[in-house]
Amino acid sequence: MGDPAGIGGEITIKAWHALRDAGLAFVLLADPDWLRRQPGGAGLPIGIAQDAAAAAAMFTQALPLLRLDLARQAVPGRPDTANAPCITASIARAVRLALAGEVHGLVTNPISKAVLQDAGFPHPGHTEYLGALAGVPGAEVMMLAGPSLRVVPVTVHVSLRRALATLSTEAIVRVARTTRDALRRDFAIPRPRLAIAGLNPHAGESGHMGDEEIGLIGPAVEILRGEGIDAIGPMPPDTMFTPRARERYDAAICIYHDQALIPLKTLDMEHGVNVTLGLPIVRTSPDHGTAFDIAGRGEADPTSLIEAIRLADRIARNRSAA
Amino acid sequence: MGDPAGIGGEITIKAWHALRDAGLAFVLLADPDWLRRQPGGAGLPIGIAQDAAAAAAMFTQALPLLRLDLARQAVPGRPDTANAPCITASIARAVRLALAGEVHGLVTNPISKAVLQDAGFPHPGHTEYLGALAGVPGAEVMMLAGPSLRVVPVTVHVSLRRALATLSTEAIVRVARTTRDALRRDFAIPRPRLAIAGLNPHAGESGHMGDEEIGLIGPAVEILRGEGIDAIGPMPPDTMFTPRARERYDAAICIYHDQALIPLKTLDMEHGVNVTLGLPIVRTSPDHGTAFDIAGRGEADPTSLIEAIRLADRIARNRSAA
Repeated sequence: MGDPAGIGGEITIKAWHALRDAGLAFVLLADPDWLRRQPGGAGLPIGIAQDAAAAAAMFTQALPLLRLDLARQAVPGRPDTANAPCITASIARAVRLALAGEVHGLVTNPISKAVLQDAGFPHPGHTEYLGALAGVPGAEVMMLAGPSLRVVPVTVHVSLRRALATLSTEAIVRVARTTRDALRRDFAIPRPRLAIAGLNPHAGESGHMGDEEIGLIGPAVEILRGEGIDAIGPMPPDTMFTPRARERYDAAICIYHDQALIPLKTLDMEHGVNVTLGLPIVRTSPDHGTAFDIAGRGEADPTSLIEAIRLADRIARNRSAA
Repeated sequence: MGDPAGIGGEITIKAWHALRDAGLAFVLLADPDWLRRQPGGAGLPIGIAQDAAAAAAMFTQALPLLRLDLARQAVPGRPDTANAPCITASIARAVRLALAGEVHGLVTNPISKAVLQDAGFPHPGHTEYLGALAGVPGAEVMMLAGPSLRVVPVTVHVSLRRALATLSTEAIVRVARTTRDALRRDFAIPRPRLAIAGLNPHAGESGHMGDEEIGLIGPAVEILRGEGIDAIGPMPPDTMFTPRARERYDAAICIYHDQALIPLKTLDMEHGVNVTLGLPIVRTSPDHGTAFDIAGRGEADPTSLIEAIRLADRIARNRSAA
């Protein structure tokens, strides 16, 4: 359900209208009273399902819901820490359904890390929480996938200062290995090509502007190549996302959050999807936040959520075909 | 002339062919023997001029040159520190011509900072050298201008670690003021709108991921607004370069090199131009490097150099009209 004060309900309703005839069923874990108050919710056919199979059976007739009551009715644009336990409970329940095989995958609506952390949530974000719930804490890796670029940041929701302080060859190697495995299994690319970004301007220009390329990133590329992984780098960060450069790789391994997210969102704002690699379950998410500033107005764009649902379906099919 | 082992000669020849009938004359400061050896140089009409006025008069007939002999003949793709003094001399002479009003502006071909620094060049880059030559050391500010985005990094050719360590409210304010002045004078935008980037993921998300937005960047925005400058921010870096976000500003003030260069090059690889703001003279440059890897092959794209020449002309006209 995501944060109930955000645009999650509205875009879910829009996604249901877009997908109801496509044979691609989903079930929403949320409070039915809340859903009815969202833009497009009045008069919407909502079906309370007892399980995922029942939800799939009713999908063309009604937006199916597994019931999960809110602590307090949500006001659009005004997040309420009282609902934080319901938000995390919806994630935990969805993970259990996916682990049990009752659903093929999990698509999450946006949450606000600040709201959850103010309520005592101990994880840096959604993705890390999912790794813990799925029994593989620390194995989770975040990919952002758009129509023209896939990026995987090595460090994610930490300050840039902390990203620099904690960067290690081991972290780069781990993320690149997980990405290679996922490109094979989830994206059906038999021989994945990885581009490893540098950290500094011009990738340090032979040590003239920073030495992480020589001391940390270059050695990671060597280790990966030694394992037979098709990896190139460290690449100068500013030229590695041009159309010509992108033809040379299937995913870019980026050193910090914005090095990955700036090119992805600049190119593919409406179509980007967040995918969690390295989990036993399939998990995708729209590539945007809660959008509290426009919640409740009916203006939210459901494109990224719809793409997230479609990509979860493709990954699940690739996994079962493998 | 730029580094004579790079693509500067080749793209200058191509630019002359593209511009010779456009009434937009330039004169090259270089070695005529070197120019003849570049792709397209054999049989090229070259005119040795005694001064800029003579060069302009011959432009439609020949590529005009102010003679500057190399220490050693250059081999494409193999930079030679023996020529470093000639490279810097060509820059210094061009600045003198511009300061004296003999030319309307200066367009520089790419140099290799590593080559010059190995030969003892004490400046971090081209731009800082120009500030010193023009008598305003430290006043220079680098803008990258493309058809769909203008970006101005507050820190430039330093490691990311050093960029973080040296970031200050004062530097952001200084760069933003210079940018505002240049947008008015050089780009003829009467009331420039500036967007100031955050540093951390999601601009720190209220201090949850870094505090530079609260401690350094936010205060800079307040100072600028207090001076009547139309500045917004700190903006989340990953969403500020989407098409919709870009409509809200005339230039983005970015905290570090790649935050500015990644979106610019991802969007506008072939058309980006480097402009130096804050100088008494007009100076532009193509937005790419020496390209030693393809030098001498005839494959280099002159688009960015041609755009740089055109933009220098537009800025000079805007300045004289002001």
